[in-house]
Amino acid sequence: MPVGTQGTVKALRHPDLEEAGAEIMLSNTYHLLLRPGDELIARRGGLHRFIGWKRPILTDSGGYQVFSLADRCAITEEGADFRSHLDGARQMLTPERATDVQARLGSDIAMVLDECLAFPATHEAAASSMRRSIRWAERGRRRMMELRGGSVDGVQVSNLGQAQFGIVQGGVFEDLRAESADSTVAIGFEGYAIGGLSVGEPNEQMYSVAEAVTRRLPSDQPRYLMGAGTPEDLIECVARGVDMFDCVMPTRNARNGQLFTSQGRVNIKNARYAEDDRPLDPACQCYTCRHHSRAYLRHLFMAGEMTAGALNTLHNLSFYLDTMRRIRDAIAFRTFDRFRQEFLLSSSHLSLDS
Amino acid sequence: MPVGTQGTVKALRHPDLEEAGAEIMLSNTYHLLLRPGDELIARRGGLHRFIGWKRPILTDSGGYQVFSLADRCAITEEGADFRSHLDGARQMLTPERATDVQARLGSDIAMVLDECLAFPATHEAAASSMRRSIRWAERGRRRMMELRGGSVDGVQVSNLGQAQFGIVQGGVFEDLRAESADSTVAIGFEGYAIGGLSVGEPNEQMYSVAEAVTRRLPSDQPRYLMGAGTPEDLIECVARGVDMFDCVMPTRNARNGQLFTSQGRVNIKNARYAEDDRPLDPACQCYTCRHHSRAYLRHLFMAGEMTAGALNTLHNLSFYLDTMRRIRDAIAFRTFDRFRQEFLLSSSHLSLDS
Repeated sequence: MPVGTQGTVKALRHPDLEEAGAEIMLSNTYHLLLRPGDELIARRGGLHRFIGWKRPILTDSGGYQVFSLADRCAITEEGADFRSHLDGARQMLTPERATDVQARLGSDIAMVLDECLAFPATHEAAASSMRRSIRWAERGRRRMMELRGGSVDGVQVSNLGQAQFGIVQGGVFEDLRAESADSTVAIGFEGYAIGGLSVGEPNEQMYSVAEAVTRRLPSDQPRYLMGAGTPEDLIECVARGVDMFDCVMPTRNARNGQLFTSQGRVNIKNARYAEDDRPLDPACQCYTCRHHSRAYLRHLFMAGEMTAGALNTLHNLSFYLDTMRRIRDAIAFRTFDRFRQEFLLSSSHLSLDS
Repeated sequence: MPVGTQGTVKALRHPDLEEAGAEIMLSNTYHLLLRPGDELIARRGGLHRFIGWKRPILTDSGGYQVFSLADRCAITEEGADFRSHLDGARQMLTPERATDVQARLGSDIAMVLDECLAFPATHEAAASSMRRSIRWAERGRRRMMELRGGSVDGVQVSNLGQAQFGIVQGGVFEDLRAESADSTVAIGFEGYAIGGLSVGEPNEQMYSVAEAVTRRLPSDQPRYLMGAGTPEDLIECVARGVDMFDCVMPTRNARNGQLFTSQGRVNIKNARYAEDDRPLDPACQCYTCRHHSRAYLRHLFMAGEMTAGALNTLHNLSFYLDTMRRIRDAIAFRTFDRFRQEFLLSSSHLSLDS
């Protein structure tokens, strides 16, 4: 899922995403809640109508940004008390409010509010935080059922078909992850996410936790690894049962000139590309690779042109979405193991710069 | 002509320009000379191939930016001695070098180097500066003829069909403008530009100088007013014989949230648009107006999204290019006078904000 934090993927227009093969966009509840506001968006008919995007949208709960971005965040059993990073206004995000806000936004998939744990954490801290997240998940699910039943005053529900996903926490501890997965499944959601990974732990640890969790989740419901990762991470985690991902890496790195190609990673500001007339990735069919040279992309980046952000984002998203498409094809053709081996043996994770 | 200073119109891709109806792009010699360099561009096969734009390109001489943007510019009869605003490197721009650099860029229309006079200027200063511009124009034209004859070593000519335009100067003084026009036409160019207007003088003065100059220029060759202006300026100056324009107004104002519409000017950050579900300009057929509301455009602008720059630029350029298309149609149908009256009586030059 490309990340469209504030209702747009940065530097792109929606048809660019569709052309790159995006089937769903992620937007961030925290940002939209503060600006332009969930009630304003509900009055516009919900997020889809407000931003003019017809395909599905997943919204997060807002919790991750409250913990990482907001000023003076204080967490209690009730929820997270914080101040807006924009204007300092005091806000309270509870499991119920996170559910209400996403109901107003009318995304297709809403996430429950969970507590985001710093890495590393002790077993005790991880256990305590995970159990609070379970209690919050129960409250979030109850609220969702009330909203579906039409019994909540003051909340304009923009999308009657909205699904809700639970989130498995528990840090890097397999016993806690198992407890969290079982408890979350016991509450019952339309899909399940794995939170609290891709936060600084070693890759192998992320993979083994993902594998341990997906085994305990229903295989006939979506399993979503939040916040990962590199193209290799996607393949390794699909191999372990993950269906869905989101990450700012393709879009943020693109704006910083870090590009993913089938031949290796490219830092486009490197002087070696100044007179390189080849396309960024000869194997890529995106607009950028079909029309422009590395030399031109380097020039635009060095000159600080906004167009560089657009062309680079278009390419990186195309590379990511094409990788996911190839994964799906390989699974359908029962050639996933070979695809995985070839991808990991290819040079795509190395730097082309040196 | 949309302005693509460094080889791209800011925030857009080339197909956006074509869709908006752009038949030619302007690029700035000063910027390209300093970065990535005219010789690098010549090695790529010229500016068209380097940037991947197939339609015509006009390049300016670089003089205007040398006088306004460079550090420590000193003008002598030989040319302009200056330091790059990027790295302080000392450079010399002479009429010959301005011609050589544009030959390497391979634009379709090159401009002679002229001296840009500050407004206001005395008659004496304007006369002296204008006569130096004439001497520079003679040198620039001589160099162009040598380049066409293939007798200049060390200059890779990227476009054998490149045209060269002379520039009429003389400030706001009709006698000087007449002298400049006659002298420039006597040298002989493929087209003629009017420089030194749209620099702070009253509109009526710009119009009367433009009219006085176009009368003395060959009517069967292009007449180009440099650096203007508002949509009203375009119409008023077409009425006075001008064929071509360039201006950063549609693109720069777009990035600042100043939008041109058939109903009036819109400052999109105005709070009155926060819940305005109407398209920016219901009469406009551009991508932005067909797909998005004022409320969404305001949200993107307030949130500082790069997508705002792209959507706003797309609209403003469409409005300008559509205005020029309507002017051409009106001329062809012999209804220009009525079109001009109706446009000036319309509310498009007023603010919609209040």
